[in-house]
Amino acid sequence: PAGRAPARTATEAVALGLGYQRIRAVTEALCAPLSPEDAAAQSMPDASPAKWHLAHTSWFFETMVLSRRPGYRAFDRRYLDLFNSYYQRLGKPFERAARGLLTRPSLREVMQYRAQVDRAMLDVLSGPLSASLRALVELGLHHEQQHQELILTDIKHLLSRNPLLPAYGRIAAPGAALAAAPLRWLRGGGEVACGHEGEGFAFDNEQPRHVVLLAPYEIASRAVTNREYRGFIEDEGYRRPELWLSDGWATVQRHRWRRPLYWSRDLRSEFTLAGPQPLQPDGIACHLSYYEADAFARWSGARLPSEQEWEALAAEPAPAPQDAPPRLHPGLSDGAWYGGAWAWTCSAYSAYPGYRPAPGAVGEYNGKFMCNQLVLRGGSCATPPSHWRRSYRNFFPPEARWQFSGLRLARDIR
Amino acid sequence: PAGRAPARTATEAVALGLGYQRIRAVTEALCAPLSPEDAAAQSMPDASPAKWHLAHTSWFFETMVLSRRPGYRAFDRRYLDLFNSYYQRLGKPFERAARGLLTRPSLREVMQYRAQVDRAMLDVLSGPLSASLRALVELGLHHEQQHQELILTDIKHLLSRNPLLPAYGRIAAPGAALAAAPLRWLRGGGEVACGHEGEGFAFDNEQPRHVVLLAPYEIASRAVTNREYRGFIEDEGYRRPELWLSDGWATVQRHRWRRPLYWSRDLRSEFTLAGPQPLQPDGIACHLSYYEADAFARWSGARLPSEQEWEALAAEPAPAPQDAPPRLHPGLSDGAWYGGAWAWTCSAYSAYPGYRPAPGAVGEYNGKFMCNQLVLRGGSCATPPSHWRRSYRNFFPPEARWQFSGLRLARDIR
Amino acid sequence: PAGRAPARTATEAVALGLGYQRIRAVTEALCAPLSPEDAAAQSMPDASPAKWHLAHTSWFFETMVLSRRPGYRAFDRRYLDLFNSYYQRLGKPFERAARGLLTRPSLREVMQYRAQVDRAMLDVLSGPLSASLRALVELGLHHEQQHQELILTDIKHLLSRNPLLPAYGRIAAPGAALAAAPLRWLRGGGEVACGHEGEGFAFDNEQPRHVVLLAPYEIASRAVTNREYRGFIEDEGYRRPELWLSDGWATVQRHRWRRPLYWSRDLRSEFTLAGPQPLQPDGIACHLSYYEADAFARWSGARLPSEQEWEALAAEPAPAPQDAPPRLHPGLSDGAWYGGAWAWTCSAYSAYPGYRPAPGAVGEYNGKFMCNQLVLRGGSCATPPSHWRRSYRNFFPPEARWQFSGLRLARDIR
Amino acid sequence: PAGRAPARTATEAVALGLGYQRIRAVTEALCAPLSPEDAAAQSMPDASPAKWHLAHTSWFFETMVLSRRPGYRAFDRRYLDLFNSYYQRLGKPFERAARGLLTRPSLREVMQYRAQVDRAMLDVLSGPLSASLRALVELGLHHEQQHQELILTDIKHLLSRNPLLPAYGRIAAPGAALAAAPLRWLRGGGEVACGHEGEGFAFDNEQPRHVVLLAPYEIASRAVTNREYRGFIEDEGYRRPELWLSDGWATVQRHRWRRPLYWSRDLRSEFTLAGPQPLQPDGIACHLSYYEADAFARWSGARLPSEQEWEALAAEPAPAPQDAPPRLHPGLSDGAWYGGAWAWTCSAYSAYPGYRPAPGAVGEYNGKFMCNQLVLRGGSCATPPSHWRRSYRNFFPPEARWQFSGLRLARDIR
Ligand SMILES: [Fe+3]
Ligand SMILES: [Fe+3]
Ligand SMILES: [Fe+3]
Ligand SMILES: [Fe+3]
Repeated sequence: PAGRAPARTATEAVALGLGYQRIRAVTEALCAPLSPEDAAAQSMPDASPAKWHLAHTSWFFETMVLSRRPGYRAFDRRYLDLFNSYYQRLGKPFERAARGLLTRPSLREVMQYRAQVDRAMLDVLSGPLSASLRALVELGLHHEQQHQELILTDIKHLLSRNPLLPAYGRIAAPGAALAAAPLRWLRGGGEVACGHEGEGFAFDNEQPRHVVLLAPYEIASRAVTNREYRGFIEDEGYRRPELWLSDGWATVQRHRWRRPLYWSRDLRSEFTLAGPQPLQPDGIACHLSYYEADAFARWSGARLPSEQEWEALAAEPAPAPQDAPPRLHPGLSDGAWYGGAWAWTCSAYSAYPGYRPAPGAVGEYNGKFMCNQLVLRGGSCATPPSHWRRSYRNFFPPEARWQFSGLRLARDIR
Repeated sequence: PAGRAPARTATEAVALGLGYQRIRAVTEALCAPLSPEDAAAQSMPDASPAKWHLAHTSWFFETMVLSRRPGYRAFDRRYLDLFNSYYQRLGKPFERAARGLLTRPSLREVMQYRAQVDRAMLDVLSGPLSASLRALVELGLHHEQQHQELILTDIKHLLSRNPLLPAYGRIAAPGAALAAAPLRWLRGGGEVACGHEGEGFAFDNEQPRHVVLLAPYEIASRAVTNREYRGFIEDEGYRRPELWLSDGWATVQRHRWRRPLYWSRDLRSEFTLAGPQPLQPDGIACHLSYYEADAFARWSGARLPSEQEWEALAAEPAPAPQDAPPRLHPGLSDGAWYGGAWAWTCSAYSAYPGYRPAPGAVGEYNGKFMCNQLVLRGGSCATPPSHWRRSYRNFFPPEARWQFSGLRLARDIR
Repeated sequence: PAGRAPARTATEAVALGLGYQRIRAVTEALCAPLSPEDAAAQSMPDASPAKWHLAHTSWFFETMVLSRRPGYRAFDRRYLDLFNSYYQRLGKPFERAARGLLTRPSLREVMQYRAQVDRAMLDVLSGPLSASLRALVELGLHHEQQHQELILTDIKHLLSRNPLLPAYGRIAAPGAALAAAPLRWLRGGGEVACGHEGEGFAFDNEQPRHVVLLAPYEIASRAVTNREYRGFIEDEGYRRPELWLSDGWATVQRHRWRRPLYWSRDLRSEFTLAGPQPLQPDGIACHLSYYEADAFARWSGARLPSEQEWEALAAEPAPAPQDAPPRLHPGLSDGAWYGGAWAWTCSAYSAYPGYRPAPGAVGEYNGKFMCNQLVLRGGSCATPPSHWRRSYRNFFPPEARWQFSGLRLARDIR
Repeated sequence: PAGRAPARTATEAVALGLGYQRIRAVTEALCAPLSPEDAAAQSMPDASPAKWHLAHTSWFFETMVLSRRPGYRAFDRRYLDLFNSYYQRLGKPFERAARGLLTRPSLREVMQYRAQVDRAMLDVLSGPLSASLRALVELGLHHEQQHQELILTDIKHLLSRNPLLPAYGRIAAPGAALAAAPLRWLRGGGEVACGHEGEGFAFDNEQPRHVVLLAPYEIASRAVTNREYRGFIEDEGYRRPELWLSDGWATVQRHRWRRPLYWSRDLRSEFTLAGPQPLQPDGIACHLSYYEADAFARWSGARLPSEQEWEALAAEPAPAPQDAPPRLHPGLSDGAWYGGAWAWTCSAYSAYPGYRPAPGAVGEYNGKFMCNQLVLRGGSCATPPSHWRRSYRNFFPPEARWQFSGLRLARDIR
């Protein structure tokens, strides 16, 4: 699950407690604009209500950390199953597709649950901490940040299904720089090391670090833009089977896809967390499935990069405070590797050579999903900036479109 | 659309206005125990959120009455589709199964919507009223009462899906009379008149009154009890295909039915609007599908009555104030024809001879559902007592179980 | 199940044996044009392979008659489940939707099975016969005739799914009379007796005979024609929800129905048992679901007759030899009550007052299907003419279209 | 698509023609035991009727080779869509799941179709052949061999669905060697070259050859046996979610998997192409999904090898005549890399670095399936021996079980 836990000073204890509080506070701040109804509804089986995210992230700390402490009393023993997402070793998770039926506990009760967990956690964090416990806390905080992103993508999906097209909030107006960065090609290849290294936190699936051989390739200096993607549509991209993977074409037919998830029929506007907005031609093309990203790349005479190709050339993100807010909209395609849209890669999500899931329930965190999914790299406008990481491996099934997912092109060099 | 509209006095105007207010108030009172989350969730496509019921019943008055008045301005024009249930002639009804996604408008906004509609309606009601308009208002009020019952059955279903099994409220404790009425058989047959007659309100589907010939039959003096139904279960009723209609047996297999909808596995308790409660042996067996009612009757060596057989022998209900509250639980099987559970009949829901649906959109109210449904008679513990009527025809598909539906046995006399 | 069995002469024994042979021979003659492949395929769960029909009709005699005779040895004990259609009391019927997977037994083996059953049956028929046994044999022969019709409708459906649009065989060329009969209205009403009466055979569901009261009505003197139905289509009948039952409209949307099952897109030809043929404007409109029949009637300002209304005015069919062949195509709308298309009625299929299913397995023949189906009356171009009967009740679910089903209009007289 | 086409001698022309005839003859020989009904039925959407395979493999030559020759006249132009599997660029493939409805053309007509194609092809092969044409012919022959394997797996599935459990034919009795080979571990790692190299035929997906870096690992010297797999079942393997991938566990629940596809409930026998046979404890475990192979490996404390790990240590198969017959049953686990069961690898099926699909319709052969599938290596008892190849990449979705698919274990060396 996590990095080594070195000997620990009082400063570190304070830092850990502060970090815990900051990250937990972000979750609540993200839910602040939501009514109790907004926070309780589930728009599809893949998405979860915000209230459920608020509870589940607390359940994680309660189950993994607090429940092993002598004397801790669960807030409500029935929550142990109710807010278990998928940990088969920890009981019987409540049916995923029915999370929207949990009108009780109320939002207020869930906030009380959070408060009890926070009090108990801060108490734990102020005392001596074993390396493994510390690792679990760190894991819990990164877990919380993952759910912060899901709160945003899930609420965006929910609001988009409402004919009133309500806004979650305001998003920063596009700045002066109205043009995408010019497209250049960055070159790579040869022996490169991949995976996490060093002191900082990483998930188990980013490890062990290992060397791979890459054939000469180049990767675009920026993400595909709305203008470029619109060219694909206008060239009948959604009508030409030869551009698509077989499963992708079947999906296009089944769901009658004709444009990215949130685009309007006239291709002029898109639904955003600020409600419907004009589509920025130089903005990052987003809410694409893997199938669409792959078809677009083929249409472009290019391909998607592998995750190793991406990692080898991507910049390391700048450090950010734990409570740095996401900007909620991908913005212009300016070449940044983080903060716009996740980049689909052509790599199936699988174990690195020598990968071992953590022992115990935490071992279900990542490993059991290594099938039928593809890796996305980078970090989106909904990802907490302090959560960005070059070795980070996000993953979703190829038909998923409700995440902030786009692409960068790649090509072989011959 | 029905009942004649005689010349009208000031007293009548006041009475109409008061009736309107009383009935509208009941709807809101029934929703009072619900949190905004409870009121917004939808537990299955057949059920609707309470908030939706609150809005839709207002939509009915706004669309059918107010929008035809010069100068009326819609509260929000988008509601015209959003809260249209199924009137194809009035626009594009919002997708039924997605009503739970309407976290906006909020409960508060819906209550404001109700308030505007109420103000405008009271204004209308205080002025001169054409017969047809008066008929529409009356229809709207009976419509409102139908939705009052659905609010209760839908919220019961929603709460039953929550592992916390929360209560909607308290229900009256069973009184001193702890035993069911003794079972007697009431005899009928011959030429009988069926359908609505006279001044009072009735839906179009209860008309025209007409004569039918009934072979000699008898009908039980009271509803089937939990104890009796339990006998069916313990005699392996759910395992014996010869007791079931073919479609019923397929349904039992598909859904693995083994007991009534809300009974516990051990047959000792049931989920009620007051949460889990011990099962009263002499209580009215309830939440049965038509298939279960039919199989139970066959197992009993009896059959279900036709709707005409029921109507010919049932008592007329006592008059009740418009705001008389439902008692929320079917109670003891004491022989009453109303206020316990709806009684399944063996009659397919179809048009009476000479039936004509009303012209215009209101014509979609009843007629277009005359297929694949069966008639239920009486009125349940969730039906407003002032809504009970001997000629009333309720109808549901044979697999529906979430209504308060039970049965009375009938037999041929040879 | 069947009429009384009077004392029996040698002539009767011979007649019974001959009748048995004639009817069994028709089944085989109907299958003669089919290749082994044609006879084995199943085009949808509702249809069955011809080979299965050949075997199942033999199974009926083997199970109901032969297996109860001392000394009879089953052809293959495994057939008892394999060719059981739906008799739960007689074992575990093989999965209906998988009948097309039974490539074994081969067609040749099934014909051998038929031969053994025939030999044993003729032996039985030549000896003394109890009334109940005689009734079972008669039931088995009428059962065989029902399956003769299904062989034709099922093979028509199968061939229609083949892009090569192959023909089953030739059909008689339309005769000189190229025009439909003129449309008149036949009047009825009052007290009429319904249901089977007298010596001849009838199914249990046609009994007991009973009196019903009919309001004054009139019924068209002939079936709706293709020309008339085409008028409905050209008047946008399939696009106007107000013409449809609610479930019908949903079905139209779900399956994108735009015309009768076998009509070509340009409304000029139809698929028949003789392959694609020009659509005869004066031919009987056919292969309509109940929903379409009902919508057409509404569009016409009329309605469907009840089954009692139909029976009260229909002529009794002329007697026909047991091996009179069906003509395979509905032909001109000439006013005949039989031999064109079955007529949908608005009557839900249910028990006549006092109805009792036969005891034992035969009791599953009709009674358990009395739900979710509608009655059709008359007899089609695929029904053996000796099988026609005025009191006959055919029944199918409202969405069924692969039978030869059309309609006659009816109207109230006010 | 294929290797280079060097200058060509008369001997080569003869050899090519003979090879063509031999391979085509095998297809027909494999279908010889089938009745027309057996050859026409389709047991599930993933499988195809044998008759369809016979036609489709001819369609391949007709479409790819013959139809481009001046003067060639199609056997039946309608076959161009009818027997197109999935080539979107070549028309509108007939609906895959409906192949079992094609009772026409008859088996005899399909054999005539084959005969015409064969005559025309032999004519082509006796003349001068461009390199690209020769490559297409070679591709068509390997394509034919792929379908030979599918004929066997598809017919096995069909027969297994028949309660009579009929046999396709006899299989060789297990020889004297009744024990599996002892289990040893073969070691590998480091820089290895992967993919096809040299003159012989290979599919485009086996190319280009490229170097990969492998961490030290070991792979089992033989396939997992029935006895070993039975240990997994008896240790409750199908009941323990911690052993399964998340999607695998969901699949186990959905389909109630409790044992390999063709095993009997008592784990003592299995359905084979020779009908039900006792399960050989030392036989190769077979008809496993990827999910089962993966779960078994995890239970064993091991893992599945990657396709590169397999290729690096596998032996090259011995050359075999083009018409060498498959042995139809996997047999003892004797260490052979080919001829038993395909070995699941943990490698998602994707493009090798620098992969380019062939231009034109043939480009749809492999590339568009590179998503949601996993690679299997080796070759099974149903694979034509002359079709085995070390660089061969077979691929199926993780839930597929009807192929002869098993596994070899692998482990990291630390
Ligand atoms: Fe989580
Ligand atoms: Fe309503
Ligand atoms: Fe039958
Ligand atoms: Fe193929």
